[in-house]
Amino acid sequence: METIKLTGAVGGFPEFLPAQQRAADEIISIIKTQYESYGYTPLETATVEKIETLLAKGIAAKEVYGLRRLNAEDGEGDKELALRFDLTVPLARYVVQNQNELVFPFRRYQIQPVFRGERPQKGRYRQFHQADIDILGQETLPLSADAEVIACATQTLAAILPKGEEFILRINNRKLLQGLVAWAGSADIPAAIKTIDNAEKVGWPKTIEGLIQTAIAAPKAEDLAALLQASNLENLTKLGLSGEAEEGLTELQTVLSLAKTLLPPALHGNLKADLTIARGLDYYTGTVVETVVASAKELGSVCSGGRYENLTASLGKKAIPGVGLSIGLSRLLAWLLTQEPWASMPATPATVLVTCQDENLMAYYAKVAQTLRQAGIKTELHPGGQALGTQIKNGVKRGLTFAIMANDDDAKANRVQLKNLATATQSEQALETLPTALL
Amino acid sequence: METIKLTGAVGGFPEFLPAQQRAADEIISIIKTQYESYGYTPLETATVEKIETLLAKGIAAKEVYGLRRLNAEDGEGDKELALRFDLTVPLARYVVQNQNELVFPFRRYQIQPVFRGERPQKGRYRQFHQADIDILGQETLPLSADAEVIACATQTLAAILPKGEEFILRINNRKLLQGLVAWAGSADIPAAIKTIDNAEKVGWPKTIEGLIQTAIAAPKAEDLAALLQASNLENLTKLGLSGEAEEGLTELQTVLSLAKTLLPPALHGNLKADLTIARGLDYYTGTVVETVVASAKELGSVCSGGRYENLTASLGKKAIPGVGLSIGLSRLLAWLLTQEPWASMPATPATVLVTCQDENLMAYYAKVAQTLRQAGIKTELHPGGQALGTQIKNGVKRGLTFAIMANDDDAKANRVQLKNLATATQSEQALETLPTALL
Repeated sequence: METIKLTGAVGGFPEFLPAQQRAADEIISIIKTQYESYGYTPLETATVEKIETLLAKGIAAKEVYGLRRLNAEDGEGDKELALRFDLTVPLARYVVQNQNELVFPFRRYQIQPVFRGERPQKGRYRQFHQADIDILGQETLPLSADAEVIACATQTLAAILPKGEEFILRINNRKLLQGLVAWAGSADIPAAIKTIDNAEKVGWPKTIEGLIQTAIAAPKAEDLAALLQASNLENLTKLGLSGEAEEGLTELQTVLSLAKTLLPPALHGNLKADLTIARGLDYYTGTVVETVVASAKELGSVCSGGRYENLTASLGKKAIPGVGLSIGLSRLLAWLLTQEPWASMPATPATVLVTCQDENLMAYYAKVAQTLRQAGIKTELHPGGQALGTQIKNGVKRGLTFAIMANDDDAKANRVQLKNLATATQSEQALETLPTALL
Repeated sequence: METIKLTGAVGGFPEFLPAQQRAADEIISIIKTQYESYGYTPLETATVEKIETLLAKGIAAKEVYGLRRLNAEDGEGDKELALRFDLTVPLARYVVQNQNELVFPFRRYQIQPVFRGERPQKGRYRQFHQADIDILGQETLPLSADAEVIACATQTLAAILPKGEEFILRINNRKLLQGLVAWAGSADIPAAIKTIDNAEKVGWPKTIEGLIQTAIAAPKAEDLAALLQASNLENLTKLGLSGEAEEGLTELQTVLSLAKTLLPPALHGNLKADLTIARGLDYYTGTVVETVVASAKELGSVCSGGRYENLTASLGKKAIPGVGLSIGLSRLLAWLLTQEPWASMPATPATVLVTCQDENLMAYYAKVAQTLRQAGIKTELHPGGQALGTQIKNGVKRGLTFAIMANDDDAKANRVQLKNLATATQSEQALETLPTALL
C-alpha cells in the first residue's frame, strides 16, 4: 500500500503540499455534501476542553496534551485546559451545555483535528483529522438511527474512494456477541470478547485457546469460532438463541435490512454482518461497525463506531443515547491522495494564467484578469519580475490549463494571445470574447 | 452594534449553535470562492509549532500557549511545542521547509484558528479564526501584488457583508509616512509613527503634542497633522517631496490605481488613501491597510495587513518578500451573524423531513428518504419515538421547508402526504413524482 510522504513542523503533525491540500479539501467537501444530504448539521467545537471534562472519559489512556501559558507567573495560567483527543467527548460536553437550545433527535457532523501526545512513528499521528457523524436522542433513540449512520457512511465512502474500489462495512451487535459468548458457556464475558477482538491479529487457533481460558469447553469454543467466522445469520436463527443473544440478532437483522433500504441497490453488497467485530471494550452497547478497504487493508478500519446507551453519563445528566460513525480521515487521506483523481490535483485553483511579459502593461493585464474573474473564471495574474518562459513553465508545472499573453500591440488592440497549455495550441482572441472562448 | 451571544467550554473559546455554525460555514465558503478566483491555494498548517520558531517573532508579546503531555514523566514530553498565535509565522516556517516543492510567486490562503492566552473579556478571544491571503516572491515581488491582495480582499468583503453596507479599505504606505515625518523634521521617526498610529484613539490635539515631542516644530506638526487627515495625494505631489516620501507616494498611487483596475467600478469607492494608517511598529515596509465597516466601527479593523520585505528573515534563509491581508473572522462573525441573511439561517441543511408516525412503516419511510436523496434533495428521516405533532413542530423550529407523512394506506399505495411548512398547505403525492414536486 502506497502512502504520501508528509512533511510538517514537528514529527507526527503532518501537513500537505498545495496540490495535496486541494485534494484533501475536495474530499472533505464531498464528505460534507453526503453528510448533509442526510440532514447532519455541521459542528465545530473549540480546540480546548477543561481537563476535568476529558478526565471523565479516561484521560490516562489517551495521552492528552495539557496547555500552559508561557508568560504565566509560576503556578498560574490556564493549566486546567487541554487539547481534545477525540470528537465524542466535546460532543457530549456541547450537548449538555446547549441542551435547551438543541432539538432532539440531534444530528451533527464534525470534521476537525484531534490531538494525542503519542511517540511519533510511521502512520501514527499526534494531530489527525476525524470526520464524525452522530445522531442523539433524549431518553430513547430507535434502531432506525443505527441503519441511518451506516447508510450515510456507506454512501460517503463510495463517493470518496476510487471508482470500483471494494470496501465492506463489517457490522455486528454487542448484545449478540455477548449472548453468543454466554451461550458458549464463558465465565468471563469481557475477557472472551477481548479475545475475539484480537482474532484478526493473532489468528483463530490462538483465539480458540483464549476462549477456552474463559472457561468455554474446547468443542464449544471451536463451534463458537466457526459460527463467528461464518457470520451466517440464518444459521444463528436455527440455534434457537434466547435472551440477549436473540435481541442482538434481531437488532442486527433489522439494522442491516433498513440500511439497505436507505441505499441504492449498487451499494447493498458493501454491508456485511461480521460477528467477529467487537470494537474493543469501548462503551458500545448494540450495533458496532468497522470498515475495511480492499486495496488498503493496512489502514485498519477506516470508518468505525456504534451505538452507545448514554453519551453524557460521565457528565451526570439525563440519558442521551446515540449512534455514530467516525471516518479516520488523516489515515485514509495518506493513501487516498496517492490514488486518482486525487493524485493528479493541480496545485492551484486557477485555470487561467495571465502572464506579464512587460511590466509597463500591468494595467492591461489587470484589466484582462478582471474581465475573466467577472465571468467566473478563476484567474492568476502574474505579478511580473520573471521571464515569460519561466512564468509559463511554472504554470504548466502547477496544472494551469491556459496562459494568456499580450504585448504592446495586443494591448492597443484590446486582444490577447491564448495558449492552451495541454495542447500547446495558440490563438489570438479579442478581449471582449475571451471569456466565451474559455468557458 | 449588536453581537451574537456565544457559549463554549471555556471562556474565550467561543462555539456556535447549529444555525450559527451553518451561517459561518457558508460565509467561509464564500471567502474561499473569492480567494480562489484570484488563484490563492488553500493551506492548513499544523496547530502546533516549535517554541523556537515562535520565539523568533517575539513570543513574549503574544501570550503563547505551550503544551505539556499530562502523562509524561517529570521534565519529559513535548515541552518544545506550542500553539500557533497567528498564521504568518507558520507560513514562514512552511515556506522555508517546503521551498524546493513550492513555485514562486506563491499564493496561499489559510482559514484556521489561532490561540492567545489572554485574560478573557468581552470581544477578546483566546481562540479565534483568521482568514489570510498572502502572495510571496523570491528575492523580488513587484508592486502589482499589493494591488492584487487589496482587490481580492475588497471583493471578498463585498461578497460577505450585508448588501449596501459601507466599508472602506484605508490604504497607506510606510515609506510615505516615514518620509513625511522626516520632512516635518522629526528626530525620532518610530516614536512619531507610533504617535500617529494612536491618533484615532487619543484625538488629533494630543497627537500633535506627541509629534512636537519628537522634535517637530509646532507649526510643522500642525501642517503634518492636516496633511495626514486630508489624505489628498494631489496636495502631496505639490509639496515636492523627495527620497523615501516620494517613493512611497508613487507606490501608493500605483497600488490604488492598479487595485481599481482589478475591481468592478462599483467597488472603486471602497478604496481610500488614508495617511493616518500606520499598523503599529510591525514589520511592514510599504503598503499598509486597515478596513472599517460603517455599521460596525466598534469591531476595529476587520481586514488588515501590508507589504513586508522578508517573511523568513528570522529563519535565516534568502529573502522572501510578500504582501498579505488578514480578515479577523471571529470578530467579524460575531456581528455579521446578527445580520440578514445570516441571522435567519435554518439549523439543518435538510429541506425535507420524512416523519415517522408508525414505526412499523419505517422501511417505507426509508424508501421515501432514499428516493429523495437519490434525486439530490437533502432529507431528514425521523427515527421515530416522538409524536407526529412534535416531529413537525421541531421541523418548523429548525427551518425545514417540507414535511412528508404516510400512514399504512399511503404506504400500500406508494404515495405520501406532502406538507409545505411555510404555507401549511398539504397535498397527496405519488412517491414516483415526489422529487419533481419538491424540486
